[in-house]
Amino acid sequence: MKLTTAGESHGRALVGIIEGLPANLGIDVSLINADLALRQSGYGRGGRQKIENDRIEVLSGVRNKLTLGSPLAFAIINSDYANWEKYMSAGDCDVTARTLTKVRPGHADLTGLKKFGQTDARNVLERASARETAVRVAAGSIAKQYLAALGVRVGGRVISVCGVKDEGIYPFERLAEAKEGKLFMIDKAAEERAAALIDELKAAGDTAGCVAEVRVHGLKSGFGSCMTYGEKLDGRLAGALMGVQAVKGVEIGLGFAAADLPGSRVHDEIFSENGNFVRRTNNAGGIEGGMSNGEEIVVRAAMKPIPTLMRGLNTVDYLTGESCRAAGERSDVAAVCAFETIAESVAAFVVAQAVAERLGGDDMAQVVERYERL
Amino acid sequence: MKLTTAGESHGRALVGIIEGLPANLGIDVSLINADLALRQSGYGRGGRQKIENDRIEVLSGVRNKLTLGSPLAFAIINSDYANWEKYMSAGDCDVTARTLTKVRPGHADLTGLKKFGQTDARNVLERASARETAVRVAAGSIAKQYLAALGVRVGGRVISVCGVKDEGIYPFERLAEAKEGKLFMIDKAAEERAAALIDELKAAGDTAGCVAEVRVHGLKSGFGSCMTYGEKLDGRLAGALMGVQAVKGVEIGLGFAAADLPGSRVHDEIFSENGNFVRRTNNAGGIEGGMSNGEEIVVRAAMKPIPTLMRGLNTVDYLTGESCRAAGERSDVAAVCAFETIAESVAAFVVAQAVAERLGGDDMAQVVERYERL
Amino acid sequence: MKLTTAGESHGRALVGIIEGLPANLGIDVSLINADLALRQSGYGRGGRQKIENDRIEVLSGVRNKLTLGSPLAFAIINSDYANWEKYMSAGDCDVTARTLTKVRPGHADLTGLKKFGQTDARNVLERASARETAVRVAAGSIAKQYLAALGVRVGGRVISVCGVKDEGIYPFERLAEAKEGKLFMIDKAAEERAAALIDELKAAGDTAGCVAEVRVHGLKSGFGSCMTYGEKLDGRLAGALMGVQAVKGVEIGLGFAAADLPGSRVHDEIFSENGNFVRRTNNAGGIEGGMSNGEEIVVRAAMKPIPTLMRGLNTVDYLTGESCRAAGERSDVAAVCAFETIAESVAAFVVAQAVAERLGGDDMAQVVERYERL
Amino acid sequence: MKLTTAGESHGRALVGIIEGLPANLGIDVSLINADLALRQSGYGRGGRQKIENDRIEVLSGVRNKLTLGSPLAFAIINSDYANWEKYMSAGDCDVTARTLTKVRPGHADLTGLKKFGQTDARNVLERASARETAVRVAAGSIAKQYLAALGVRVGGRVISVCGVKDEGIYPFERLAEAKEGKLFMIDKAAEERAAALIDELKAAGDTAGCVAEVRVHGLKSGFGSCMTYGEKLDGRLAGALMGVQAVKGVEIGLGFAAADLPGSRVHDEIFSENGNFVRRTNNAGGIEGGMSNGEEIVVRAAMKPIPTLMRGLNTVDYLTGESCRAAGERSDVAAVCAFETIAESVAAFVVAQAVAERLGGDDMAQVVERYERL
Repeated sequence: MKLTTAGESHGRALVGIIEGLPANLGIDVSLINADLALRQSGYGRGGRQKIENDRIEVLSGVRNKLTLGSPLAFAIINSDYANWEKYMSAGDCDVTARTLTKVRPGHADLTGLKKFGQTDARNVLERASARETAVRVAAGSIAKQYLAALGVRVGGRVISVCGVKDEGIYPFERLAEAKEGKLFMIDKAAEERAAALIDELKAAGDTAGCVAEVRVHGLKSGFGSCMTYGEKLDGRLAGALMGVQAVKGVEIGLGFAAADLPGSRVHDEIFSENGNFVRRTNNAGGIEGGMSNGEEIVVRAAMKPIPTLMRGLNTVDYLTGESCRAAGERSDVAAVCAFETIAESVAAFVVAQAVAERLGGDDMAQVVERYERL
Repeated sequence: MKLTTAGESHGRALVGIIEGLPANLGIDVSLINADLALRQSGYGRGGRQKIENDRIEVLSGVRNKLTLGSPLAFAIINSDYANWEKYMSAGDCDVTARTLTKVRPGHADLTGLKKFGQTDARNVLERASARETAVRVAAGSIAKQYLAALGVRVGGRVISVCGVKDEGIYPFERLAEAKEGKLFMIDKAAEERAAALIDELKAAGDTAGCVAEVRVHGLKSGFGSCMTYGEKLDGRLAGALMGVQAVKGVEIGLGFAAADLPGSRVHDEIFSENGNFVRRTNNAGGIEGGMSNGEEIVVRAAMKPIPTLMRGLNTVDYLTGESCRAAGERSDVAAVCAFETIAESVAAFVVAQAVAERLGGDDMAQVVERYERL
Repeated sequence: MKLTTAGESHGRALVGIIEGLPANLGIDVSLINADLALRQSGYGRGGRQKIENDRIEVLSGVRNKLTLGSPLAFAIINSDYANWEKYMSAGDCDVTARTLTKVRPGHADLTGLKKFGQTDARNVLERASARETAVRVAAGSIAKQYLAALGVRVGGRVISVCGVKDEGIYPFERLAEAKEGKLFMIDKAAEERAAALIDELKAAGDTAGCVAEVRVHGLKSGFGSCMTYGEKLDGRLAGALMGVQAVKGVEIGLGFAAADLPGSRVHDEIFSENGNFVRRTNNAGGIEGGMSNGEEIVVRAAMKPIPTLMRGLNTVDYLTGESCRAAGERSDVAAVCAFETIAESVAAFVVAQAVAERLGGDDMAQVVERYERL
Repeated sequence: MKLTTAGESHGRALVGIIEGLPANLGIDVSLINADLALRQSGYGRGGRQKIENDRIEVLSGVRNKLTLGSPLAFAIINSDYANWEKYMSAGDCDVTARTLTKVRPGHADLTGLKKFGQTDARNVLERASARETAVRVAAGSIAKQYLAALGVRVGGRVISVCGVKDEGIYPFERLAEAKEGKLFMIDKAAEERAAALIDELKAAGDTAGCVAEVRVHGLKSGFGSCMTYGEKLDGRLAGALMGVQAVKGVEIGLGFAAADLPGSRVHDEIFSENGNFVRRTNNAGGIEGGMSNGEEIVVRAAMKPIPTLMRGLNTVDYLTGESCRAAGERSDVAAVCAFETIAESVAAFVVAQAVAERLGGDDMAQVVERYERL
């Protein structure tokens, strides 16, 4: 299973192609659109999310709500494109407007200008933008439907916003509560404090980051492999999550805390109960030896604060070389719920890939049967 | 540039093949052996490191100390194989000895037994073992020689051992000091405290983990890409580091701390000095938009404690289903210096890959020229 | 450079994404549409080509006629989709009509039904159809524009139709003449005989195949590599061409004839002229040691006859198990010009990939400079 | 399943790593050595084949004759290396001897010198040499053991040598007869004529090529896929075979002859017999729609004549620019049996890859079960 993505932030459409889905997987488009809506939701978002209301258009690979086993191509039309066509068209267009040369710290602007031989960072930022993650959310939503057919569920929550933390530990079943709040936190008191902090930051023209936790529930053991470094499930999850715009840290299970504790307090002992091998802890976050071990997979990812600040940051104009302030524009103070949604989606896709590799199969009934026989 | 690895821990040899090196890169085998020795060094190691003294045997791809542009194959002979051949031979051998069925928590044992249809975890652990990292160290050492030819240096240090931290901030030039100590820490007082803690843990039959920091110095901007998620340099570094045995967390620049701070304290502002774009901070750890930004790349990885404890951990015998203690054996209390060496090596290889993709080239002189013209 | 394709024959659209194009490559959409028109042209085509008039819609990756260095996504809308939506929609649709169970010999029908767990071959043939090649023609056309910026040209011609052969040998410059005829043959007498044969076959309800020759002119030496089997340019060309629907044979230079001759009559001797190494023959077809050798690349591919015959072929109904005749429908007698266009396109893309790997580069100016310095 | 190869012709060893084998596949090393011996056998070979007697050394991935599911690394030691070490060592060695600057037509010499920035073609030809195919034969032999466990057999024969053809058509069972002769032809009269022609060519200092036919018997339908161009089994077979040194043509089933016939004489009609779908012809060579169709897979590959002629060919000295004759040395007149063995091996590996992708699986018992349930 493989996802290829394309699309500029203000271009005609974002496009994705998923290869390697078996035939006869049911695809519920409303679930995908619900995930796309989650990506646009949440406290702290700026104006653009109100302009666009992302919806998936399936272009191929699905017929009568069932996959065909062929590549599933889809588009998410940029509904604001009508206003941008004159600046962004593939044909002749006006490239003298909407230019950006006051390169924004924390973005791809400065590096991208040099790398791609450009004089206008518009030509870089359009693709570097986190708007690209809409495609990954749609693909992740499809991956969740594939996993759900095997009884595997993916959930998540926000565990901190700009330092305001939810210290609670919750079973998988309670993750749904997170989605009911404005910042996807389960501890509603913490969520309120975080919202208040966002208000303060907004007033100060500043921005916030957050940490999201993703959990995969019900996956059997043995996905990923200890045999080659490239197959390790933890490596693949980390690579995918760190490959999301603005992510600066990823950890699994205890994560960095594991490095601070003696082995006797870290490793998940194994017990025998009714003939089964059971664990009473899950410090490993469900992965040992690069493979799922049958416990819940627990991954956390840290997003840096939004790098476009209303108050501006010191920078330099790329063309004139003069000091200036980076453009403020209307923008987000935080993208907390978006980030949690993206992290879930990206993790779901990686897990689905590992499942598809191990099970092979061309038809969903065959995939389910192989999974059950493991 | 691509690395393929093979080899069991007590098999005949570990083997690696590096594809994609240009011709006419000078290969200094003594530098590779020095890195292999670093991997075996350090306070807290058990008996095996004294038995083996790893050395690379180049099997192809190099002639008269220069690469040929062909795949560089190498072996690291397991010097203890004479004692293991009767149990590990590819031909007929005694598989009734050296069995392991008391599956060790924190290892691949239990999952691997089921996944690969085995009844003896020996058949899993031999490959899952961190001994495989010797190949990655050798390959990383070659990657460092490739990078050095472009003026790019890779260094690192240990920043904490089981919670004992070196809180200092050091310039790249001081990293060499780390290698002089027994735990690769620059703050020698912290290093002594860490060594004392290792002694205590050893006495208690317990183990330790650590955090290593890797830095890449002198790399120009624009390696990796913002254009597709798979090309992002941060994602690739994280994937590779999390794919190292026992790693549970990876962060870049400020890492998780970035999620706790407002944007105004995180993003590295840009200033103009003598016509250059300069930064006064490097919270991004040298990567913005998935690309090197010309600042030092700073990555940290957290290793969990060694999962084989002399005091044993509760577990279950895979064959009998009875509760028991996991085997203790002689083993390491910590593998701190090994881990730091591995982390450097793995990061160096990823960076070299990104360099090779962007520059192309078949001959090292051509690669250097293209790099200089960037 | 990588092409991912999607799309069903009667679905909403065919979709392609090209990754790895440098920035600032000029894209002339009219040239792409011209190639798409060539794919639909030619003597012997059936009704469908008159219904559809393929045009590329660029969805991303190009702004103001220049590439951005981002993935170039495009769609070719199936203009007949309005009539097919009720049978082919991703949402609820009528799958009881347009079924095909009389599996057609020479098609994917029978194998695909079993493989993908289907009872209606419609669910297989929609993707297996050669209509997918429209995407490869569009991508090949873009590859030709990339190569043209380096002074490399791709051309071709038809050398035989159902056994009617053009025995001539022509310089690259004369290939343009082929495109002026109805079957893309240069020998117009042979072309007339071939057209007459197609008329006869049509009258008999039968079909024809053909052989096309593709040539790549002006490519410097050293593309592809002798160092790993996967990099060999001849292997990649053959793999891509044999991967086109209906192709049963591929040869390079003398091809199969080389196996029948002694070495003294096959190998292209090297002579010195004005300080240059020159050849007086090109039996190798421009590839030695898996690399372009600076001579013209010459590849031929053989397409089997169209497998849907108006007269029908014996087959069996998949559902009833009863003997029957495969459906005739309106269809092509031959797709000669289409095939030649596809073969050129596919070969152009492979060559462009090999060029991009060797040159690297993010910006077309840099790519051109690197090419010139070879 | 993936094969990575390394090794110079006169270097220390040829090395291969096969990733993706399941655990518990029985590996019979004597079968591998038998295939390596076939590669060195046959009429028309020169002196080197008598010097070396290739044998596989398994370095990892196999224990007690069963795979572990880990990468299977192996070496084929160059027994003549003792005599070459002083010229070919990875350390300091004498690069002033054994130089080759009279670049040989039909080889990688001239192109490789320029591409890799060399002045001595020794640095190119050592890797470009067909000796690399020994690794592919060993890997192919392992692939055959994997396929044999599923009841799939791979065989082949030589059908022509420098124009002397065996026009016979033979069932799979008779292919074993080919291996008994000196040129792997079944028609022993043709084989004698071919041997006599080789004698003549040898006397004239000339060389020969040949055509080999590979057949895969007993493979179920549905391997490969019609859904993406890269998955097509015919494309993959052609790519792999054309990627063998000296191959200039590949065809499947009727191959080029299919292009000369009307559709009614090409497509394999389908009949119902006892509830099964059966064919009475196999013009498709067992592949329709890019997938195995359950019939025997039939592939042919054409090898050009050996490009090193005792009588020499006109060429130019790379360093002096002067006209000269390419070096003759002791060499082969033909490598007919070698080529047939290589073609079988390469095809077997491709088929095994396609099987492994579709079946997935970590343990051979699971793989067999999944195959049987198809």
